[in-house]
Amino acid sequence: MAFITLLTDFGVRDGYAGVLKGVIWKIAPEAQIADITHAISPQNILEGAMALDKTVPFFPAGTIHVAVVDPGVGTKRESVAARLGDAIVVGPDNGLFSLLLERAENLGQPVEVVKLDKPAFWLPDVSHVFHGRDIFAPVAAHLANGVSLKEIGSPHSGLARLEIPKPEQTDCGIRGQIMVVDHFGNLISNIPIDTLAGKGEPIVQCHGRELRGIKRTFGEVAAGDLAVISGTMGELEIVVNQGSAAEILGAKVGDPVEVRFL
Amino acid sequence: MAFITLLTDFGVRDGYAGVLKGVIWKIAPEAQIADITHAISPQNILEGAMALDKTVPFFPAGTIHVAVVDPGVGTKRESVAARLGDAIVVGPDNGLFSLLLERAENLGQPVEVVKLDKPAFWLPDVSHVFHGRDIFAPVAAHLANGVSLKEIGSPHSGLARLEIPKPEQTDCGIRGQIMVVDHFGNLISNIPIDTLAGKGEPIVQCHGRELRGIKRTFGEVAAGDLAVISGTMGELEIVVNQGSAAEILGAKVGDPVEVRFL
Amino acid sequence: MAFITLLTDFGVRDGYAGVLKGVIWKIAPEAQIADITHAISPQNILEGAMALDKTVPFFPAGTIHVAVVDPGVGTKRESVAARLGDAIVVGPDNGLFSLLLERAENLGQPVEVVKLDKPAFWLPDVSHVFHGRDIFAPVAAHLANGVSLKEIGSPHSGLARLEIPKPEQTDCGIRGQIMVVDHFGNLISNIPIDTLAGKGEPIVQCHGRELRGIKRTFGEVAAGDLAVISGTMGELEIVVNQGSAAEILGAKVGDPVEVRFL
Repeated sequence: MAFITLLTDFGVRDGYAGVLKGVIWKIAPEAQIADITHAISPQNILEGAMALDKTVPFFPAGTIHVAVVDPGVGTKRESVAARLGDAIVVGPDNGLFSLLLERAENLGQPVEVVKLDKPAFWLPDVSHVFHGRDIFAPVAAHLANGVSLKEIGSPHSGLARLEIPKPEQTDCGIRGQIMVVDHFGNLISNIPIDTLAGKGEPIVQCHGRELRGIKRTFGEVAAGDLAVISGTMGELEIVVNQGSAAEILGAKVGDPVEVRFL
Repeated sequence: MAFITLLTDFGVRDGYAGVLKGVIWKIAPEAQIADITHAISPQNILEGAMALDKTVPFFPAGTIHVAVVDPGVGTKRESVAARLGDAIVVGPDNGLFSLLLERAENLGQPVEVVKLDKPAFWLPDVSHVFHGRDIFAPVAAHLANGVSLKEIGSPHSGLARLEIPKPEQTDCGIRGQIMVVDHFGNLISNIPIDTLAGKGEPIVQCHGRELRGIKRTFGEVAAGDLAVISGTMGELEIVVNQGSAAEILGAKVGDPVEVRFL
Repeated sequence: MAFITLLTDFGVRDGYAGVLKGVIWKIAPEAQIADITHAISPQNILEGAMALDKTVPFFPAGTIHVAVVDPGVGTKRESVAARLGDAIVVGPDNGLFSLLLERAENLGQPVEVVKLDKPAFWLPDVSHVFHGRDIFAPVAAHLANGVSLKEIGSPHSGLARLEIPKPEQTDCGIRGQIMVVDHFGNLISNIPIDTLAGKGEPIVQCHGRELRGIKRTFGEVAAGDLAVISGTMGELEIVVNQGSAAEILGAKVGDPVEVRFL
């Protein structure tokens, strides 16, 4: 059973996302296809990288993930396929796979990257503006059919890496930033909650508000109140129970989050 | 063939919905997964209950429906799985399954509820904020693999019920309210159209407008005109042919709809 | 392996799109179902026709495409199923299949149309407002099960055709218009780029701006700059590299695009 996922910034309206499924099934009729999302903000590679990082690890080993957030389509950036630990990814080499690469490296998992330079595995007519349809989807389908990475492309040294903001130690604690404002208005930071352990009671500062302690569940927070919790991937997350922290604080991606300890 | 559906308020952007598919396929690779919707308004349990009520009865018997609209995640509310007539549901016990429960009861169908208290069927690490991924999706996948309700949880007495507004008899007819403003701006009430039969010609009043009679089809209504029709589930529905009744009337969920008879 | 796609103007929130999958699986449990889009603008038949034209040709031969953009539901317009070249389509006979029909005719492919007049292949209770659920989805599922067009309906002469704006020759070039403003704000015209070949260097005029030459890739355009490229289906397309041409020009569907030659 071959699984293929799709993550893009295409939106769903124009059929750009839908057509990928047709291309895949024409080559690999047995493939099971899942949309992860097509609502990545246009050209926002980092947002795509973070969504991949939250979803890919939960898919079966060997799942093929097609990801297309591709402001450089048709330019010199390479098209790649890669094994990153248990996952296979296909897409542009523009940093979109940074966090998955880092995860595989941290876990000491195998990393193998090829550049897609064999048109035999593409659609016959390749446009300069839609590699998702013309290169990435067909390559994913051929991989699903059992073609190996070695056959589908040529060795490629490394993968582009995004500059991903990391939290820093300060005199009295840690300084990070908001990485994602999610659908609920939760503010997801780049500070892993377990780096706060054993240093005293944390005070989290964001947009002039100070929040004391980490709550275990929404149940410990009154409706409408701000709190800090451990997010879905273990990140420090600022939330409002049954409301939007982004709205209440006027916060956005990139805003600082500071932690000190009592 | 096991079918699993997903209905949530997660939106599609962050990958919260997409990750559920990975979790399911890792456990039950043969499962066929369908998104019903991920666009339920955040924390709106009633809206979720109504969308389930309109879709679940049309799926094959034995389909497993994962539904997550869950303002109380991580609190005392139980996690449940239940057989409600032909359908299996998995999610929070917060009223989300009220209408399906009522439907099964009205039809004299079997109802069996268990609370999810056996971590062997969950992901190994359960967060306090994402039971959809960590409990409901894996439980659904194990059910798809043939695990029984009895094995997957412990007996649970009943299911939480929402207070669902019901239409009332008045001196001269029936008073109900708008339950849903749909994507087209149609106003769907809680008045079953067949309760109007045999009482004379109905006059429907809403936002100061009076609409006479029930139209059979949009074809009986001039483009841009208001009318009352029998909706997709047989409810009294106020519509505008090729337009939005919500916009033209300035109507919203909860607004009264009154019917009298000539 | 039977493939069924869904393209509608239903939105995803209310479950109108999700329910189609249940109806299909109840009749054809082996069918693989793909959403193309449910975000066609309400009642916009031309927009639906164009999205079909961009996606259907990429699906496997024999794929069954359910398309519902149906302002005339319940009126005299026929319900149809048709073979248009390699594709099978099911939906209202209101012009939605115009471009696929034209494509099949231009390629000299077979065209066979039946009207859906055999309730044995529909849901038992057919509403007047939701033929997608009650007629089109069940018919598609029976076709997926191997029922033939001849069995499922009666011969129907032709299919409704939309008036689709075509580019015109002018004294000094070609005059067309914007057909689609896509998710990225790209302006997709009705001028096939290959009709410009061999006439000199093209100057494209739109909203008072003149753009010289056709760029091969986004890489030849500075970020934020306007340019003309060959779009995903070979149409003249006005774009901004990493930006929205629609926003920068204030352009919308129907606006003129003129080409002259140096």
